[in-house]
Amino acid sequence: MEGLAEYSLLIEKELSGIHFPIAPENLYDPLKYFLNLGGKRLRPVLTLLASEMYGKTREAALPAALAVEVFHNFTLIHDDIMDQAPLRRNKETIQVKWNPNIAILSGDVLFVKAYQLLVQQEERHLKELIDVFNRTAIEVCEGQQLDMDFENRTNVTVEEYIEMIRLKTSVLLGCALEFGAIIADAPKEDRNNLYQFGQNIGIAFQIQDDILDLYADPEKFGKQVGGDVIADKKTLLNLKAIELCDANTSAQLANLSKETDSERKVALTRLIYDDLKVKSVCEEIMEHYYNRAMLHLDKIEKDESSKTRLKGLAKYLMTRSI
Amino acid sequence: MEGLAEYSLLIEKELSGIHFPIAPENLYDPLKYFLNLGGKRLRPVLTLLASEMYGKTREAALPAALAVEVFHNFTLIHDDIMDQAPLRRNKETIQVKWNPNIAILSGDVLFVKAYQLLVQQEERHLKELIDVFNRTAIEVCEGQQLDMDFENRTNVTVEEYIEMIRLKTSVLLGCALEFGAIIADAPKEDRNNLYQFGQNIGIAFQIQDDILDLYADPEKFGKQVGGDVIADKKTLLNLKAIELCDANTSAQLANLSKETDSERKVALTRLIYDDLKVKSVCEEIMEHYYNRAMLHLDKIEKDESSKTRLKGLAKYLMTRSI
Repeated sequence: MEGLAEYSLLIEKELSGIHFPIAPENLYDPLKYFLNLGGKRLRPVLTLLASEMYGKTREAALPAALAVEVFHNFTLIHDDIMDQAPLRRNKETIQVKWNPNIAILSGDVLFVKAYQLLVQQEERHLKELIDVFNRTAIEVCEGQQLDMDFENRTNVTVEEYIEMIRLKTSVLLGCALEFGAIIADAPKEDRNNLYQFGQNIGIAFQIQDDILDLYADPEKFGKQVGGDVIADKKTLLNLKAIELCDANTSAQLANLSKETDSERKVALTRLIYDDLKVKSVCEEIMEHYYNRAMLHLDKIEKDESSKTRLKGLAKYLMTRSI
Repeated sequence: MEGLAEYSLLIEKELSGIHFPIAPENLYDPLKYFLNLGGKRLRPVLTLLASEMYGKTREAALPAALAVEVFHNFTLIHDDIMDQAPLRRNKETIQVKWNPNIAILSGDVLFVKAYQLLVQQEERHLKELIDVFNRTAIEVCEGQQLDMDFENRTNVTVEEYIEMIRLKTSVLLGCALEFGAIIADAPKEDRNNLYQFGQNIGIAFQIQDDILDLYADPEKFGKQVGGDVIADKKTLLNLKAIELCDANTSAQLANLSKETDSERKVALTRLIYDDLKVKSVCEEIMEHYYNRAMLHLDKIEKDESSKTRLKGLAKYLMTRSI
């Protein structure tokens, strides 16, 4: 993220400066640990960029930006419990390093912390900020529930899948941008366009995630290529393959889910996907959402230079190799 | 709660009228189920009573009152997971009827719902209400963490125990009353006195709970007498007994924790407690907090008639048999 590093560095610095009490240690130590695991800090940067577009200083939107990042981390903590994930950014998750009860409770506290940060913004914006935040938080939970529901279903459609990732991931990017717009008193229409920009970039971002899982350069990727295939996770690749294939290939795919040799499983799945041109089909869908995002950015009546950073960030997200 | 039934009926009616979307079913069905399990609805009634004291209609404080009750239910859902409780009000807990993941997530959504209710109050009160709510929510989590920490400790003092129940239970009663005072624009000093009244009544209420567990009339109690003793739970009775007994009795108590015959365990524990006069010692502590609560109510410069309902509720809580 050239030119954007200074933004994420600011967020990183402010995050590590968030005050937590010393006791109870079992409640607060996990939070200090988790917030220090790093990350792209993409969401809070969006808040700062949106607010800067309308002439506000970065600092003006910092509490709301941090609220978004802190909320995101709360969802990760609870998701890790639900997924029984042993690792997060190659470090032990809270439920492994401590225990699941502590992960539930420290997650809960972190959620409150997000509201505490948000109310540090000017009082005249409070109602709007909290309304957007509440709506978003509920949608994120709905997305997570759909994701869990999908695990037990065999008939998930591409449309349902995209609605799930919209809720689970994308609305928070929209919320992050809308926060910036609210704080900077942007016109109502711009607020909506920024939200839509974020939501569509979010969907494209998640599809890119699905594609990278199987098609990333193993040298650059930093984690196992094909992890989703090995875990039989529903992804856009997988759902599109099922949609496009004939009965014969469908049986082959069903058989492959029982394959215990991971390397063989990934290689054979990829052969089938390649035959069906699943990668380029998914890239097309990704580009569709990317273009929709750009359309919403174009609708905002501001000179191009003020949109450079947001465009740069969007482009970076679409061309990343990890 | 003579004269107060109409208040809890109003809360019950409004609670069952809270709108939840139909889908995802696995997210919202558990909430509809849980909010329908009933309860004293004590906390929201406090909000209504406090606001009425200053001439507001009941309806004026309803959203905040419901926010308190909804938050309370959120904490129960997550506590039930942490305690691995099979039953709540003699019905299956969410993690048993559905599963723990669904209990985590529907709890999270319910927490957001509390904020959504709270922001329905007049905008000019929003900042204060949310500040009080955030602070209280964090304290409740701290109390729950201390409670879990205490399970693994053998040297918990009476002071630590009371601080734990203050955080886990009592601050929410204080918050409920403070909400009513904020909404009715009560003077700052009254706000504080109402908060302190609630907090001290809350501590007395929890001590009463501890006493009833072993000394309730089995015919009226409705659940097993001595449940805390059987589960080796730390209660004020238990901590006071340890504090007051000699080395010999201390060894007897330690031995009793290994006793597998529940009836014998409860009977022998009670014999020891009776010898040490633990019940009356605890009742004295309870009365100390009850009197402190009343002192704060007395400080409020309002005629006696306006305090009748709050006093009645406090008295009811101290003399209840279940």
